[in-house]
This record gives sequence, C-alpha cells and structure tokens, in this order.
Amino acid sequence: MIMHRPDDLLVLFEHKLQAEIIRKEPQSLYDPANYILSLGGKRIRPVMLLMSCELFGGRAEMALDAAMGIEMFHNFSLVHDDIMDRAPMRRGKPTVHEKWNANTAILSGDTMLVLAYRYFQRLSPHIQGPVLNVFSQTAMEVCEGQQYDMDFESDDRVSLEEYLEMIRLKTAVLLAASYKIGAIIAGADSGPQEDLYDFGLMSGMAFQLKDDLLDTYGDEKTFGKRIYGDILANKKTFLYLKALELANPQQKDILYHHYSGKSVHPEEKVKAVLTVFNQLDVQHHTENKILEYYQKALDRLEHLEAGPGNKMLVREYTSKLMGRSH
Amino acid sequence: MIMHRPDDLLVLFEHKLQAEIIRKEPQSLYDPANYILSLGGKRIRPVMLLMSCELFGGRAEMALDAAMGIEMFHNFSLVHDDIMDRAPMRRGKPTVHEKWNANTAILSGDTMLVLAYRYFQRLSPHIQGPVLNVFSQTAMEVCEGQQYDMDFESDDRVSLEEYLEMIRLKTAVLLAASYKIGAIIAGADSGPQEDLYDFGLMSGMAFQLKDDLLDTYGDEKTFGKRIYGDILANKKTFLYLKALELANPQQKDILYHHYSGKSVHPEEKVKAVLTVFNQLDVQHHTENKILEYYQKALDRLEHLEAGPGNKMLVREYTSKLMGRSH
Repeated sequence: MIMHRPDDLLVLFEHKLQAEIIRKEPQSLYDPANYILSLGGKRIRPVMLLMSCELFGGRAEMALDAAMGIEMFHNFSLVHDDIMDRAPMRRGKPTVHEKWNANTAILSGDTMLVLAYRYFQRLSPHIQGPVLNVFSQTAMEVCEGQQYDMDFESDDRVSLEEYLEMIRLKTAVLLAASYKIGAIIAGADSGPQEDLYDFGLMSGMAFQLKDDLLDTYGDEKTFGKRIYGDILANKKTFLYLKALELANPQQKDILYHHYSGKSVHPEEKVKAVLTVFNQLDVQHHTENKILEYYQKALDRLEHLEAGPGNKMLVREYTSKLMGRSH
Repeated sequence: MIMHRPDDLLVLFEHKLQAEIIRKEPQSLYDPANYILSLGGKRIRPVMLLMSCELFGGRAEMALDAAMGIEMFHNFSLVHDDIMDRAPMRRGKPTVHEKWNANTAILSGDTMLVLAYRYFQRLSPHIQGPVLNVFSQTAMEVCEGQQYDMDFESDDRVSLEEYLEMIRLKTAVLLAASYKIGAIIAGADSGPQEDLYDFGLMSGMAFQLKDDLLDTYGDEKTFGKRIYGDILANKKTFLYLKALELANPQQKDILYHHYSGKSVHPEEKVKAVLTVFNQLDVQHHTENKILEYYQKALDRLEHLEAGPGNKMLVREYTSKLMGRSH
C-alpha cells in the first residue's frame, strides 16, 4: 500500500480538527479549547501517529480519533504550562490565561485532558486497552518532565544527565508514544512497536536539543522566536550545562554570576555568556550530541521491519523537521 | 451474600489507600497527591462504589481499584477547585497551593487526574470500556459544573433551575457515577445500573442542598465550617435564589444591595439577609426541596431489584449522611 505523504496527512488531520470543533455549553469552558487548537502549529504528533499507522499497513482514517487525542493532550499541556511559565504569547497570539484568566485556563485544560481520553475511548475495545496504557504512562511522564523543569529553576546543581532525562520526559516520550499508538492501531507486533517508539524517543531528543541550539545560534528572522530567550531567562539548557561542565573556574564564575539573577544589563549578559560559550565551543558540542541522537534514531528505523519506500517517507519527514530553521 | 457494613467498607478502603501511597520521583510532584489524600474525609464516593458492587453480588475487593480511581479524581478536583476559589484551608489544613504553590497544585492535580484513569485501566478488559465511558462523561460534567459555578459569580440573573443544574453537574453526578461503576463491576444489568445512578443523583442533590441549608441554619459547633460563609461570600445558593424568587421589590433591593459587594459590615449584612430569608421562610422551602429529592431517591431505591436487606444498608447509609449535623 502506498502511504500518504506527510503533507497530505496534515490536510487530513486539519479536516478532522475542523469537524471536531466543540459546540457545547458552557462556551466559557469550551471556547478556550477551540481557541488553542485553532492556533495551528506543525501538528507533528498527529502526523507521526497517522504516518506510523500507515507504515504498518493501516489506513490513516482508522487512527484519526487517536490523532485528535494526542493533539488534544499536547494542547492541554500547552495551556497549563503557559500558566506555570507565565507566558503571555503562544504562536503570536495571547495565551489562554492571558485572553481569559488563569482559572479558565486551569479548568479548560482539565477538560481537554478528559477529552483526550474520550478520543482514545472511541477505539475498538481490543486496541483501546493497550493504547490507553501507553497514553496514561506517557501523560504521567510528561507531568514528571514539567515538574523537573520547574524544580531545575531553583536548583544550582542540575547535571547534564538530569537535563537529558527531563527533556526525555517533557518532550520526547510524547513523540515516541504518537508513533507507538499508530503502530498499535495498525496491528503491528510489539517488536516493531518498540523500535518505532525508540525512533520517536531519539529523534525527539534531537529535536529538543536543536531547539536549544537555535535559541542561541539560530537566525532570529527564520527561527521566529526572540533569540537568546533561554539565556535571558537563565534557562539551564544543554548549552549552559555543557559549558559549566567544560568551564575553568574563571569561566564558571562568569556563568554563575550571569545566571544568578544579579546580572542587570541584558545585552552585556548575552555578550558575556556567549563569549564563554564560544570559548568552550558549546555550539559544536551540542551539534555533536544532536547528531548522536539523530544517528541512533536512524539506526532504529533501519532495524525496523517495514517497506523501504515507506520508511523513506518517515526518514524524510524527520530530516525535514531536523533541518528546519524555524 | 451478606454485605459489609459501610464502616467496614471504609476500613477496607483506608487500607487500600495506605497501600497505594505514591513513592515515586519527583517527590515534588507526588507529595502533594499523598498529602491531599491523607487529609481524610468521609470517603463517601469510594464507599458508595464498594457498597454498590456488593449490592449486586460482587466482592468489594474487585472494586477497590475503581474506588481508588473515584477518590483520586475527587481529590484532583478539590486541589484545582481550591486554587480557583483561593481557598486557604481544607479539612483544617493548608490547601495544596498554600502549602506548596499554585504551579505545583496545577501539575499535581493534572497527575492525579491521569492516576485516576490508571486505576480504572486496571479493571479487566470487558468492563474497562463501560466504566471508562461513565467516568469520562462524569469528569466532563464535573468540569462543566465548576465552570457554571464560576460563571454564576459574575451573573446577576442566575435562575433556581440553572443553580440546580449546576449542583447536579458539580456534585451529584459523581455520586451517581460511583454507584453506577460499582454496579457495572458487579455485572448488574443496565436497568438496575440506571436506577442506582438516579438514586445517587437524587440523593446527591439532597446532600448539596442540605449543605447550603446548614451553612446558614446549621450549628457552627457541630457543622464545623464557619457559618454564614455563603452569605458573606455572596454565594448564589438555593436559599438566596429562592428568596429572590419570593421577594417583594423592597426585599429584593435589600438582597441585591448586600450581594453587590457594596455591603461593608459583615454582621449587619448577615443580619439583614437573614431577616429577609426568615420573612420568606426560606429555611422551610429549602427543607421541602431536600425532602422532595430525598423521596425521589428512595423511590428509585425501592424500584431497584436487589435483596431487601442489602437495600436497607444503602438506605441507612444515605439517611445517616442526610441527617448529619457535620
């Protein structure tokens, strides 16, 4: 069977999303859900889920409810994370707690989490159990990742290893679960399911590290986000933690000083931190780590039993996401 | 089969709860969940669920995971509601967002909602689907009820009917679902399932109206909560809305004035509102409404096909909850 291209799967999913707009009372609860889902984004999780279903011979249409479930869950986590991070904007628009208020954002988020489950509950009974097990396990891990992320803000002794575990939980497991759920729906065996899960996990790690890299070394025009946001917010990213690991005592002092909150001039701060990063070749180290994860991901995909043409579509999609400058 | 008495079911459930204390990392995420669950309470939802399972010939042990799921969900809703209501205390102890902070309360609450699902996912496959359908539907309704409750704060035209619909969603459906899930686990037919659901719904309405009544006409010593809390907080309870319905223009003015936030002396406010309530015999009207729901509940129970001795235990438990002065 010939697979849809990712762009076609995206169109298919956007149609589904349109058909699923919630027109229930109270509007004050459901409008924020419709709003955040309408802000767009690349919809990479549902596309991965649909792609994985087709990779194992399933029809994408069989997996559309599950794709909605994954996207609903992802958007639930955005709404609640934005409250916790006090983020004013998301995709160029006001966040839910800004447009409405924090209470509405909490409660609409809760409802979206329940709605996510309801989409998975539409699956036929024999696959519903296994899919729900993957989903609940993943949802717990995403919460754990967000908690570690918050805990790290006030922890001066975060290790590189702990950081990698945090992004595994906060970001990578949901991509991995998207692939795995698609495979379960298509009726794939557990071996290939796990291979594709690991592929998603490793490529997810690579995506997140790439994101860290672009925040400091990307081009603001194409990257879109305000550059140096992580440095200005004292975020303990891979770049910062790698720099700390490699720094001599003098460089360490500079980094600690500027990440202590005592640094008052943003431009001076960025300049000083960048100087240390460049002295220690942090960009190169991060690129190496990204390639390491990317290679691990490709090895897993290579190992996977599926048609070579179909695997190529998955590889192309991943490489497009990796190579993105925005 | 002889049923356990409610007190014995409570002991059984408390043992289960002890065995389920979460000892996972990050503690900062799971400690608040353990904390709120340890604060006690009457555990009426799990007891109802276990009782219902036994009513239809099931063993309470079969339903312990589901009972945990219901109690976990209830406590999730308490944690998030307390943030939204800015409540400093719960059962005489600091609320989660007070003891930790709002972010921790949001995220721990989210995790508890996922954990609730995980308990239901432990049920055997053939009952998991029906139970999850009831649970998700109920969880949505509880969120809708909380949203209406918040919306009503800034709405001056709430009707008695809308208020009753709000408490049905916010409070009664979860009691009804507890009974129904117990019945599903025991393998009861859909007729008796629905009868017991309606019994839970009607008695839940009676409980909530009794709660409204006690806040104004209860004895502070035995009721425990600060009396007149609803009046002081301008809560549009059954009592207030009934009074508005019956009031003459002069009495309406008094009520509107004191619920407008312009009333500055708490004692004067309570005195003025109480005077109008008493003139209109609001206490009596509320008691009548409670009895109406209670009678409907008993009629449903009467209609239910189950052993008369076992039904008596359910009736006694309900009447004990109704007659409670605390």
